[in-house]
Amino acid sequence: MLRGLTRVLGSLVLLLLAAALIGAAWIALRIARFEQTEDEASLAAKKTALAAMGALAAAESGERPNVVLIVFDDLGYGDLGAYRSAAPATPRLDRLATQGAVFETFYSPMPYCTPARAGLLTGRWPIRTGLTQVVFPEGHPIDSIQRFAGGPVRLPADEITLAEALRAAGYATAMVGKWHLGDAAPSLPNDLGFEHYFGVLHSNDMAPLPLWRDREIAEPDPIDQRTLTRKYTEEAVAFVEAKREKPFFLYVAHNFPHVPLHASPEQAGKSTSGLYGDVIADLDASTGAILDALERRGIARKTLVLVTSDNGPWYQGSAGVVRGRKNEVFEGGMRVPLLARWPGRIPAGQRIEEVAAGVDLFPTVLARAGVPLPADRVVDGVDLWPLLTARASPPERPIWYYQGDSLLAVRVGRWKAHRRHGVFGGFVLNWPVAPLAPQGPWLFDLARDPDESYDVSQNNPERLDQLLGAMRGLEAELAANPRGWKR
Amino acid sequence: MLRGLTRVLGSLVLLLLAAALIGAAWIALRIARFEQTEDEASLAAKKTALAAMGALAAAESGERPNVVLIVFDDLGYGDLGAYRSAAPATPRLDRLATQGAVFETFYSPMPYCTPARAGLLTGRWPIRTGLTQVVFPEGHPIDSIQRFAGGPVRLPADEITLAEALRAAGYATAMVGKWHLGDAAPSLPNDLGFEHYFGVLHSNDMAPLPLWRDREIAEPDPIDQRTLTRKYTEEAVAFVEAKREKPFFLYVAHNFPHVPLHASPEQAGKSTSGLYGDVIADLDASTGAILDALERRGIARKTLVLVTSDNGPWYQGSAGVVRGRKNEVFEGGMRVPLLARWPGRIPAGQRIEEVAAGVDLFPTVLARAGVPLPADRVVDGVDLWPLLTARASPPERPIWYYQGDSLLAVRVGRWKAHRRHGVFGGFVLNWPVAPLAPQGPWLFDLARDPDESYDVSQNNPERLDQLLGAMRGLEAELAANPRGWKR
Repeated sequence: MLRGLTRVLGSLVLLLLAAALIGAAWIALRIARFEQTEDEASLAAKKTALAAMGALAAAESGERPNVVLIVFDDLGYGDLGAYRSAAPATPRLDRLATQGAVFETFYSPMPYCTPARAGLLTGRWPIRTGLTQVVFPEGHPIDSIQRFAGGPVRLPADEITLAEALRAAGYATAMVGKWHLGDAAPSLPNDLGFEHYFGVLHSNDMAPLPLWRDREIAEPDPIDQRTLTRKYTEEAVAFVEAKREKPFFLYVAHNFPHVPLHASPEQAGKSTSGLYGDVIADLDASTGAILDALERRGIARKTLVLVTSDNGPWYQGSAGVVRGRKNEVFEGGMRVPLLARWPGRIPAGQRIEEVAAGVDLFPTVLARAGVPLPADRVVDGVDLWPLLTARASPPERPIWYYQGDSLLAVRVGRWKAHRRHGVFGGFVLNWPVAPLAPQGPWLFDLARDPDESYDVSQNNPERLDQLLGAMRGLEAELAANPRGWKR
Repeated sequence: MLRGLTRVLGSLVLLLLAAALIGAAWIALRIARFEQTEDEASLAAKKTALAAMGALAAAESGERPNVVLIVFDDLGYGDLGAYRSAAPATPRLDRLATQGAVFETFYSPMPYCTPARAGLLTGRWPIRTGLTQVVFPEGHPIDSIQRFAGGPVRLPADEITLAEALRAAGYATAMVGKWHLGDAAPSLPNDLGFEHYFGVLHSNDMAPLPLWRDREIAEPDPIDQRTLTRKYTEEAVAFVEAKREKPFFLYVAHNFPHVPLHASPEQAGKSTSGLYGDVIADLDASTGAILDALERRGIARKTLVLVTSDNGPWYQGSAGVVRGRKNEVFEGGMRVPLLARWPGRIPAGQRIEEVAAGVDLFPTVLARAGVPLPADRVVDGVDLWPLLTARASPPERPIWYYQGDSLLAVRVGRWKAHRRHGVFGGFVLNWPVAPLAPQGPWLFDLARDPDESYDVSQNNPERLDQLLGAMRGLEAELAANPRGWKR
């Protein structure tokens, strides 16, 4: 037996060593697929594009709403009362839902934080920005790997954010909360369109995590996470209450319910759904406080409020009826709530079944502000206004499911195709385990099978081919023009 | 950048090498926790116990039913019409469900094949048998590791199977299908109670996979898997139709819907739920054919039919409303269908909400056959008859959720506690990744939160402590008496 053990150990070590070598090379190569560069030409082109957008917007007349965009972190598709959750109490969000539209099939741009935010703020699928990995604080080992390998560690400064576009068009802009698009110039919130910034630069499980006000540390690490939601709320309410002529754009990006969970002292222990429920109750109350501030200032009817999440639930939280969770290209990774309210403009009580995506918020908001889309680059999103007001379906377009820079699935209409990729049980595996358990390709009919349980590719081979072809098509387009420049 | 890459690669390799060393040692130690041994004393004790059971059973009078136990492989909790599936058509199984009892909360003994079957056939949680790992054909690398390390590669021959107990009591016994409890004497189907055996010894993704009739190869590897369900069905029907005086026990263990999926030529392409649906349709038709044979022989009212699965769904298939899939200690790994029919004895149209488990089938069936439980060992299961007939709830007892020899969770009543263990998103990680993402301990209220989404341990700390204590209690008991001998 001892001889046996030695042999077993020896061969295992050799095997794992080989795997490690191949793995490390692969990781480094993949991170290095995009380089962190903004050249003078691309920065100049952005300046020109923004100036044109601002000039055209200024020429427009008409009502330009204030915009409040609230993004929760890792809140699941099944976590809100408006999405049939029976668990955490969310009275304020439930009421908000009845006052506007509830999107049944809304996709975040990626199943995890950083790229999801890149997509939300640029209206482009994150792959176009190159920022397809989660970024870590400087000095974190993964950050070091990313830097050594030359991969992007911040949103390229030649991207145009929603804040920059609105600011060019005369909006007052502020961000409160988690940035997670890099912790260095020229990609800080104040660099990319926000006149005011208060928040943390990373996820609440990363360290160090000081609280910033604009370019200064307002509170050093470690901060008291129990008071984070309250601080964000006070800051957001103060911004709403400030007297100003201009319309405003307020982006509130909460750190919760991302782990580690911390409830406020006021709420702690009160939810029947445990600590997660407490944390959700804090977020619900925060949303209520911001809505109340709009009422107090008498601008609720002049304000478009959007509430969503960056990706599906992680350890706790519910993905509702769909399969998968955060990090996965099954529906639960990317399908998230979206509530949209603009009293008098968006009919109340709507439940919208049509597919919509995080990249649509950029064009939807810009159109309301009378700002044209940038002419120098591909914007993937579409304006959801016809859907919100006239129930006209937007044109059928693909939803792309990426893990990092790997395109693993696509949805068009009711059909979703998965490429042959690593799966183990319900979980989509990341490299290096993925090649050990390849499954697929699969075709799911999400109208009949929202749970992605029954591959119907044999019933619809041409449909599968078409979708696999669409994925190859996007990849060819990206190979030719990774950043989607039109110049 | 090149220097950076080298550094990155170098440190990654060193890290992974260290992990590999620790990992290999850990694996070897864990496999070796149980030894594959049956000593003369334990084999003799078993013989005595069986003889006593047979003698006492012979003294009993009364109606002794035939028993047909049908086990599907990897069929999910949400895959049958009786469990609200809208997808694969299962008309015969749906009808069977209306003719007897449908268990809403039935647990397989482990979330994967081999130990699940050990539990089903012995009435004991698989940890007591020592066989907590999946077994592979001789010569497979994992089999070699298991043998070198001295771990069990077959059900210990001192275990008493349901077939042995019934045979001792005068039943005719036959098994058709997948054994997966070892491929060597003295742990083959014919060694452990089955007079007749026809099937394969492993899962249908393992090789070589010849088809055996008793101790002879009936069809060499590779077999045509498209005809496997039909062959099993013909064999089962022939056994039902054979004239005999004695009551019989027929155990039909299908290979499907375990991957790779193969439908019969007759069914292929017909299901609107794709290949998985075709495979399920084959299993549904097979069940129908066996039920029809009981009718033809006029013994349907003398036959207890039980239909279940060994664990949750793997790549395809649905776990319905619960979280997780095969291999996981979330509900979807172990919660499976159980249909029970005995016309005239089990009231039709029942939906049973009470918790029941795979280990209960052994005592339930033995009690119907008038066979006492073995006196020399712990049997974990309870007789479900009071529940099936008088709707009397069985005593509250724990459901243990193991992965291999690691006890990770326990359910008692509506409460389920997870220990602090490796989780990533929705997926319970196996070692060696588990320590990287520890979460918990968690307490879930399955009555309110069947999806295991909201840890309520802070609301019920004493409940969590109690359940964690129960787990430590079982481990202490097992440390003192791993096999659960009472002699």
